[in-house]
Amino acid sequence: MADQYAHSGDGDGPAETSENRVTPAIRWEEPPEGPVLVLLDQTRLPAEEVERVCTDPPALVEAIRGLAVRGAPLLGIAGAYGVALAAARGFDVADAAQALAGARPTAVNLSLGVRRARAAHQEALAGGAGEEAAARAALEAARALHRQDAEASARMAAHGLALLDELLPGGGHRVLTHCNTGALVSGGEGTAFAVALAAHRAGRLRRLWVDETRPLLQGARLTAYEAARNGMAYTLLTDSAAGSLFAAGEVDAVLVGADRITADGSVANKIGTYPLAVLARYHHVPLVVVAPVTTVDPDTPDGASVEVEQRGGHEVTELSGPQVPVVGAEAVGGIPVAPLGTQAYNPAFDVTPPELVTAIVTEEGVVSPVTAEALAELCARSRQATTS
Amino acid sequence: MADQYAHSGDGDGPAETSENRVTPAIRWEEPPEGPVLVLLDQTRLPAEEVERVCTDPPALVEAIRGLAVRGAPLLGIAGAYGVALAAARGFDVADAAQALAGARPTAVNLSLGVRRARAAHQEALAGGAGEEAAARAALEAARALHRQDAEASARMAAHGLALLDELLPGGGHRVLTHCNTGALVSGGEGTAFAVALAAHRAGRLRRLWVDETRPLLQGARLTAYEAARNGMAYTLLTDSAAGSLFAAGEVDAVLVGADRITADGSVANKIGTYPLAVLARYHHVPLVVVAPVTTVDPDTPDGASVEVEQRGGHEVTELSGPQVPVVGAEAVGGIPVAPLGTQAYNPAFDVTPPELVTAIVTEEGVVSPVTAEALAELCARSRQATTS
Repeated sequence: MADQYAHSGDGDGPAETSENRVTPAIRWEEPPEGPVLVLLDQTRLPAEEVERVCTDPPALVEAIRGLAVRGAPLLGIAGAYGVALAAARGFDVADAAQALAGARPTAVNLSLGVRRARAAHQEALAGGAGEEAAARAALEAARALHRQDAEASARMAAHGLALLDELLPGGGHRVLTHCNTGALVSGGEGTAFAVALAAHRAGRLRRLWVDETRPLLQGARLTAYEAARNGMAYTLLTDSAAGSLFAAGEVDAVLVGADRITADGSVANKIGTYPLAVLARYHHVPLVVVAPVTTVDPDTPDGASVEVEQRGGHEVTELSGPQVPVVGAEAVGGIPVAPLGTQAYNPAFDVTPPELVTAIVTEEGVVSPVTAEALAELCARSRQATTS
Repeated sequence: MADQYAHSGDGDGPAETSENRVTPAIRWEEPPEGPVLVLLDQTRLPAEEVERVCTDPPALVEAIRGLAVRGAPLLGIAGAYGVALAAARGFDVADAAQALAGARPTAVNLSLGVRRARAAHQEALAGGAGEEAAARAALEAARALHRQDAEASARMAAHGLALLDELLPGGGHRVLTHCNTGALVSGGEGTAFAVALAAHRAGRLRRLWVDETRPLLQGARLTAYEAARNGMAYTLLTDSAAGSLFAAGEVDAVLVGADRITADGSVANKIGTYPLAVLARYHHVPLVVVAPVTTVDPDTPDGASVEVEQRGGHEVTELSGPQVPVVGAEAVGGIPVAPLGTQAYNPAFDVTPPELVTAIVTEEGVVSPVTAEALAELCARSRQATTS
């Protein structure tokens, strides 16, 4: 079951530093009553900072299904901790793993995280460990995943800041970002947002321009929240107001994440990234993509091969959000703004071709210019590092 | 006072044809109880089609203040009819004219329309006419303004459709538009929307792509409403989804209106126009601006001289709309989506330089390529036509 409380307890996650003022998106705790997984409920942001305490796998499955925890890397970490929770609390680990992985069937990272903790648990048992030791092995696997993700964030932030300083030697960076790519989707401080945060901490971020990111408003709801909590100088804007910011010379660089990077360097990312890339090119402003090496998919040759998820039109024709009051007990959607029956075009992401991408920043280093060869080399280097 | 009813009576406006399936935005009626001005209440669209019946000038002032009637040309027509209503109903015409013109002090067209009807009234009285004849003169002035605006719409639509057919000889036009530029802002069928409607009636509109137009969603609320009521094939999208439509080759032309056109051909229009212009250029798609000649302002030399209105950040940080329920009696704003205290950049419009504008379509003809000389010539021709 899941309880809710609003205080920030002592964290256990690797991202807990004095500089990190954002309540951790996920943390493992071991109070006397038994281990629990504590989630920052993202469906309540930014109105309320409410933590959900999951004491068993079904509560976590519910939290994942209801989007209280979201974002690819974070889902992987949550899944791994979920297996550890099942083991530590004496649940059937195989059943729990199946339920967790199936909570959002298309989330690849979720099932990868689940599999990793489950494998550690099985190996320990196969090696003759008792239930308790096997549960500890699962927890260690989850913690390792969490730590590795945080470390990757930190390395991306460092590489990204060095690149920004190189591209913009004058300092006082004014950075535009899109969607949410911070601590709410990551075991660490995220991808593109982590670079902006590093610039802020180094005293070199003059302004973070935050695209609201229609239709789901991840920028307005989540990135603005993270920026505010970190004390960054930020300003929110509608996605289409970015044009006049560029025209006024108010944007020095664009920082975005990536959902997938194809072999040729095309970047599939949240809808709205491509228009920013075209605007950036027209105004000679660098567009920097920040993503872990695992985002590079060598099996997808180019942008044209990316299948774009088309989402429900109601996300466009209705307003919804955590604070939109639900009118009538049966209403589950939002508030209609368009005429009834209006059809909407609502792709989840768009694809930016490599010629519009100034650089791709990963935890293993920076690729610039973006070419198939440079990406292949990066992936080979990363595999070597993993296997050595 | 203003009553409300929802039926469509016999119209008196010049735009009433069998093809016009949209309830007129404004019409003058003369039931036995005395003349009234009937407005389609735009604050209730698209949820409900409610008409407001204004029987006296204060009711019209209230309707203008509350945005039940809006859009530059339509406000001018409403103001002129308001003076006629005051005269016909025996109100003090000077007082009524002052109150009407002051209902939205920055709306230039409103005070122009008021002045025109008031001048006709004064001239009639000065010429020895009685009160009744002077009231008729004011009404005639209002009707003339209404008719001229409708005629200008029709001419823009014809010129615009001819241009589309020339630019896109293959037919089956797929047109992207932004904001609301139809019958809801005009005495006729509008500007850019009127061109798309003409293409639809000629059987040559394959798809109207409707940008939702954040932050106030005039596209989702009003353009989608007008497209639906006219039986057009239309699809709504978030403003930033336009990028992938261009990339997929799904846009043949962009049609937008204009708030102001400077002497050099720079176009100030609803925020979000400029990014579309850059995308259109990048994809070799024509961008056509449709606006009456009065939109050209020879006194503003160029785009840099345009003062851009910065609107309240709450339009971005809060969701609002006619159907957003007001929670709590004291709540007058929308529903917050961003963290409290979030600062927003919210310019009302942006400026597109002439080199990104394929053509400007006016009631007096088409300017293409867009140069200061061609615009000056158009304005001179238009002045000649008016004075001859």
